Amino acid sequence: MQSLSETELALCRVPLFCDVAPEVVHKLSLGASFASYEPGEFLFKAGGRPDYLYILMEGAVKMTAGPLGGRESVIELLQPVDNFLTAAVLTDKPYLMSAQAVDHVRVLTIPGTVVRQLVSAEPQLALTMIASLANQYRQMVRHVKDLRLRTAVQRLGIYLLGLAEKEGGGDTLALPFVKKLIAARLNMTPENLSRAIVALRAEGVDVRDDEVHLRDIHALRRFCNVDTLLDELDEEFVVLTER
Amino acid sequence: MQSLSETELALCRVPLFCDVAPEVVHKLSLGASFASYEPGEFLFKAGGRPDYLYILMEGAVKMTAGPLGGRESVIELLQPVDNFLTAAVLTDKPYLMSAQAVDHVRVLTIPGTVVRQLVSAEPQLALTMIASLANQYRQMVRHVKDLRLRTAVQRLGIYLLGLAEKEGGGDTLALPFVKKLIAARLNMTPENLSRAIVALRAEGVDVRDDEVHLRDIHALRRFCNVDTLLDELDEEFVVLTER
Repeated sequence: MQSLSETELALCRVPLFCDVAPEVVHKLSLGASFASYEPGEFLFKAGGRPDYLYILMEGAVKMTAGPLGGRESVIELLQPVDNFLTAAVLTDKPYLMSAQAVDHVRVLTIPGTVVRQLVSAEPQLALTMIASLANQYRQMVRHVKDLRLRTAVQRLGIYLLGLAEKEGGGDTLALPFVKKLIAARLNMTPENLSRAIVALRAEGVDVRDDEVHLRDIHALRRFCNVDTLLDELDEEFVVLTER
Repeated sequence: MQSLSETELALCRVPLFCDVAPEVVHKLSLGASFASYEPGEFLFKAGGRPDYLYILMEGAVKMTAGPLGGRESVIELLQPVDNFLTAAVLTDKPYLMSAQAVDHVRVLTIPGTVVRQLVSAEPQLALTMIASLANQYRQMVRHVKDLRLRTAVQRLGIYLLGLAEKEGGGDTLALPFVKKLIAARLNMTPENLSRAIVALRAEGVDVRDDEVHLRDIHALRRFCNVDTLLDELDEEFVVLTER
């Protein structure tokens, strides 16, 4: 019973399940279990059956696509608490990305069959999943827009602004990943990232080792063409409620 | 009453609402209305309030992002029947893309307030929305992968393979849009598209005016690094059902 209640407690701390009734959390917890991965280990590979919904509790995970003709790319870098790959699990279709542990990773896994069955049976859980999927869709649209409309230097600027926002809006932040990984996420080579860091000095950005100081956030936002409405970087989690 | 039942009939033909109970379709139809747009006219602009869920019944719509520092890009080209922008409407957040009529366009609009209220109240509609959002998310992930892992020539190849699949898997197809628009969707200049068409001749692709003949689909799939599991181009519409 001890491990069961640990699972339930963990589920209750996941934003995705905050508004879900305790009995539904209990049902989710019945099939759920914790799993750990060492750096470099794969949680799953693209093309695999969506056996589990993963909830990242500790550590960082990189979601990659490819390799395709030898090329691989980092589509997302996830930090706790986050759920993935919800769309594959809900549609029972193959994972489109691979997930690999960046450091020591601890996840909670919920069997896809349990998720699908409970989402069908519990309207409140369905609304929660809608909110999560809609946010994930909007993040992916932003990703496409960044790739198509912004230069590499602007993409780095947007990324730093997003980190600053996540850390509470201050002007100093620590890079959460090694630069090589950040470069891969931003679709740059490490050399391009170094050049982009130098280029951003003109916009008041100082990077020293892993510490970043944004001396003029407004100038940086202008330089990156940030649109307050469209580039909201850390979208809050809204669940539809009965009206 | 005539226009009401026309709306209901139209809603029933939308794959999104095929499995929804007649009384829910009726409720959706109460606020719904038809609207028409001339070529070049905007249905809505990015940043606007998500007042309506749009269902494309006739004509083609281009979804664009930007302009951002003068640049604009075509993120999607929609053809009937398709629903957009579901994620914005369900989360009640600003549209992230603009929608512009390519030719004469007829849409069915359902007020966002009606959609949100019915999705909260009708579990079957919620499941339908989950399926739609999940598919849209997966399409956007494929878009990111195409941009990051494939060359312009491969992106054109994938696009043509997708059109062939949509038209029933044959080896002859008609381009559904003018080349300039297809180039914009594939993140190319019109000149790059012309060069890509020439390059694809070596893979058995003949393009004459708007007619395309794929002489060796297997060779083209190999050239584009198509992965049967990951590049399923015209994802079927699966709605979760009670098990």
